[in-house]
Amino acid sequence: MVVYGDVVQAYEKVTRFKNPTLLQYSGTLSRMTDSEVFLKPENLQITGSFKLGGALNVMSNLVQKEKIKGVVTCSAGNWGQAVAYAARQYDTYSIIVMPKQASLIKIAATRGYGAEVALFGENSNDVAAKAQEIAQNEGLIFLSPFGNDDLIAGHGTVGLEIIKERPETDVVLCPVGSGAFIAGIALALKEKNPKIKIIGIEPENANAMWLSLKADKIVELEQVDTIADGLALKKPGEQSFEIVKKYVDEIVLVNEEDIKKAVIFLLERTKLLVEPSGAVTVAALMTGKANLQNRKIAAILSGGNFDLTKLKIFLECDC
Amino acid sequence: MVVYGDVVQAYEKVTRFKNPTLLQYSGTLSRMTDSEVFLKPENLQITGSFKLGGALNVMSNLVQKEKIKGVVTCSAGNWGQAVAYAARQYDTYSIIVMPKQASLIKIAATRGYGAEVALFGENSNDVAAKAQEIAQNEGLIFLSPFGNDDLIAGHGTVGLEIIKERPETDVVLCPVGSGAFIAGIALALKEKNPKIKIIGIEPENANAMWLSLKADKIVELEQVDTIADGLALKKPGEQSFEIVKKYVDEIVLVNEEDIKKAVIFLLERTKLLVEPSGAVTVAALMTGKANLQNRKIAAILSGGNFDLTKLKIFLECDC
Repeated sequence: MVVYGDVVQAYEKVTRFKNPTLLQYSGTLSRMTDSEVFLKPENLQITGSFKLGGALNVMSNLVQKEKIKGVVTCSAGNWGQAVAYAARQYDTYSIIVMPKQASLIKIAATRGYGAEVALFGENSNDVAAKAQEIAQNEGLIFLSPFGNDDLIAGHGTVGLEIIKERPETDVVLCPVGSGAFIAGIALALKEKNPKIKIIGIEPENANAMWLSLKADKIVELEQVDTIADGLALKKPGEQSFEIVKKYVDEIVLVNEEDIKKAVIFLLERTKLLVEPSGAVTVAALMTGKANLQNRKIAAILSGGNFDLTKLKIFLECDC
Repeated sequence: MVVYGDVVQAYEKVTRFKNPTLLQYSGTLSRMTDSEVFLKPENLQITGSFKLGGALNVMSNLVQKEKIKGVVTCSAGNWGQAVAYAARQYDTYSIIVMPKQASLIKIAATRGYGAEVALFGENSNDVAAKAQEIAQNEGLIFLSPFGNDDLIAGHGTVGLEIIKERPETDVVLCPVGSGAFIAGIALALKEKNPKIKIIGIEPENANAMWLSLKADKIVELEQVDTIADGLALKKPGEQSFEIVKKYVDEIVLVNEEDIKKAVIFLLERTKLLVEPSGAVTVAALMTGKANLQNRKIAAILSGGNFDLTKLKIFLECDC
């Protein structure tokens, strides 16, 4: 079981490879919520998302334990880029399996970070099977995108960064997908300051964590359909669920329209390109669904890898 | 005549009101140029542009000298927002005169920073006349958008920030409009380190500084037509021209297509919304028009106030 000390260790190991993504004050969101709102722009992290912290910690612990030939993983998105970059930092060969329809810009970025890209199949099952096959055939280590202790501890480094930069923060908003990110964040923050409030944000259309907490057991959705594709998971990870149950104060749900408006707001007012999954925290603030007043808030923008063709469609809608 | 010491004084006065816009490393631009490229993201400055430093210094020196009733200026863009915010920091009333067709988002932002907005006329002559009329009728101080010593010194604070954060920087790229910004930057940097190379970037379609340097006197263009509207000036400011002549090593020209590609690149790869005027530095690097190798480069992104309706048109073009 991952503990607070693991996050501290991860912080010490991976920080030198990361961009400092300093908290940015938002006057407009502060006025809207009668609070002091700072944004944690993980979209400005190298590779464009928070996943770098997790990938770096996974790689660091891997190369520490044994001499490895290389790693392979499957991802159409942020995880692939994070692993590609992390592997290069540890002088390790990597292959990222992506579905055939993956966007050219993501393929180019992943290659730019030093990975080999293999295009295969149509969906997440196809790429996962292919990545495992490659691992076996070529003697590479398969890195699951769905996490383990090292991943959660690595993700938690973002929580430590927030509290080190602004120790007075009393509410942190974090997007919820599989739960590994918020688990790391909550672990880092609650053990350091039990009074800090941790609020997870999920799309209404992908609310597996919210349902699972309500049922007090893991609930699996039949389908998920949200523009926040990074959060479109049918069920939470088991270990993440346990940590979230213990530490997270509340899950707030936002709808598709809320998310679109938040993406546009962030671009227009803060000049940041944030992907829909990363903008759910701001959606919860703008709509008042995270009902907060007179607080010192940090809202995590988890990533910015958003295809410009999709952004164009957002800009065309009248939201 | 503005001198290095004025920039240092401005830095001491205005820094507490500004966001720290830390330099961001760009791996992709570094590979493209065989150099180490850092971006100075003034689009993330409060009010979305570098103009805040100048406006704050102008306001600071104004309120220090005399008790004033308020200020008025004219601007369809970054200057208006900067003055609005700066006036509020010094508890001073402000009116910003904008042309009638000014975008709703800019009007809302300017009001949000605490200014009164007056909509009048169609073009820069109309708003300037109106602002001066208001100044006279209401006993307010008219702030020229085209600068004076305090403005240049305030703009120069961005140069000091760069050199304090990365003293090893040996080339700085800066957009050139009236020249007040690069004048401040050059003053701040060359007096501190005469070996640092300062390169100004102008659009081919608005190359008044380039022509003026070549002619060794101020040249006025008959017309300017560029998507980099913040740089669309017919002639450089007199004092700025003298400083640029003394300190700036080179002016590089980029065309409209180069600028569009740079805006898209910055959005896609660095997750930053940068207005065309702010992206000319990256355009010069991407095209190789700023011919640099093995250098430690800081490229200034001067602002991010770009209408999303215009961004949409960029995304539709096939560049």
